[in-house]
Amino acid sequence: MDTDDQTTRGGHMTLVLHGYWRSSAAYRVRIGLNLKSLAYQQATLDLRAGAQRSADYRELAPIGLVPMLEADGFRITQSLAILEWLDERYPGTPLLPEQTDARSLVRAMAQIVACDIHPINNLRVLSALRSDLTASDATVQEWVARWIEEGFTALETMVSEHGSTFCFGERPTIADCCLIPQVYNARRFGVDLNPFPRLVAIEASCLRLNAFDMARPELQPDADGVSA
Amino acid sequence: MDTDDQTTRGGHMTLVLHGYWRSSAAYRVRIGLNLKSLAYQQATLDLRAGAQRSADYRELAPIGLVPMLEADGFRITQSLAILEWLDERYPGTPLLPEQTDARSLVRAMAQIVACDIHPINNLRVLSALRSDLTASDATVQEWVARWIEEGFTALETMVSEHGSTFCFGERPTIADCCLIPQVYNARRFGVDLNPFPRLVAIEASCLRLNAFDMARPELQPDADGVSA
Repeated sequence: MDTDDQTTRGGHMTLVLHGYWRSSAAYRVRIGLNLKSLAYQQATLDLRAGAQRSADYRELAPIGLVPMLEADGFRITQSLAILEWLDERYPGTPLLPEQTDARSLVRAMAQIVACDIHPINNLRVLSALRSDLTASDATVQEWVARWIEEGFTALETMVSEHGSTFCFGERPTIADCCLIPQVYNARRFGVDLNPFPRLVAIEASCLRLNAFDMARPELQPDADGVSA
Repeated sequence: MDTDDQTTRGGHMTLVLHGYWRSSAAYRVRIGLNLKSLAYQQATLDLRAGAQRSADYRELAPIGLVPMLEADGFRITQSLAILEWLDERYPGTPLLPEQTDARSLVRAMAQIVACDIHPINNLRVLSALRSDLTASDATVQEWVARWIEEGFTALETMVSEHGSTFCFGERPTIADCCLIPQVYNARRFGVDLNPFPRLVAIEASCLRLNAFDMARPELQPDADGVSA
């Protein structure tokens, strides 16, 4: 595994994050970049206008979704793949624990968000529910809440067993990078968070750190004019 | 990172895969275990009967989904987390390339299946479409095909650039572990695979290997009495 660190290679790399202020998958990567103290530029795609589905963007990212990270022109898609790449390329301030079993627990927590909650609730799926299944706003709201509640119930149990200040122990990991944007989404959709006191406590711990605070959607350049 | 290998530790571990013959996420893990030449036992949960949602199983796997791998009693959920754990614990016959950039490409391909296709099409979501949105069989069929086609279109482009015999180069990786079960699902739902000749060619290459062949759903012990 290549372990060039930030001082030898990263210092020379230009990092450009293609995202959108409200994309929770892009939000995960912003947190990871900030935890690594990496400087990066942002390129915005207006998801509501469908910019991510343009031929130009698909040339760069065939799946037509954000985020995509360009590192000196090398393009990486999928937020979890980007976070793992960051952790291998810049091993300082690790985003995963060192021990193999512990790594699997952190990855599993991250994947509850990234596989079991978010994909079912993202913009393209909710749009399809409205257009293909003529779902009402209330039905969409229930749909979103259902998958968040199922996933958060499992996460609450897992962090009760393995977490502390953060999802896993005393240092933020990719599990926290995934959790905080999903809690943001949950609030946005009015999901009751009272059944998840440990997740809410971890959110509070995270948001006390600059890396998480500065990654918040409302603070991104493309959120101009939108109130929090 | 812990790199005990199979000969020092794995030989003593008892591996039990909790799954279901037709679960494509369990199918991914069966392939990975076979590629590593690891012996394992199977514990079946009848997903159609809701066994994965039982209190007993959730005690072991809070998310209430398969697969779950028990390794000497240590429990790992989420198929991608299990595959990464296998690769770290048993580094012989790696499931990821060595170089950091290459690893990110393989992970991104795996995640197109594991994040962008499968979660939207799995049993619990299709059941919700039928029950909560009164979707007809035809609507469910279109729904499944839509997400497979979007994801496979991106994958076809990526393997054209990075693949060869397999999704990435000349050795099977976690991308192939994810692709083959998804192609199986696509066939099951009658999705036209003609637009994806490279994916179909990779499927043929994979199925020539015992590791993939022996992982096929129809060959699992809990598929008794079901014709292929």
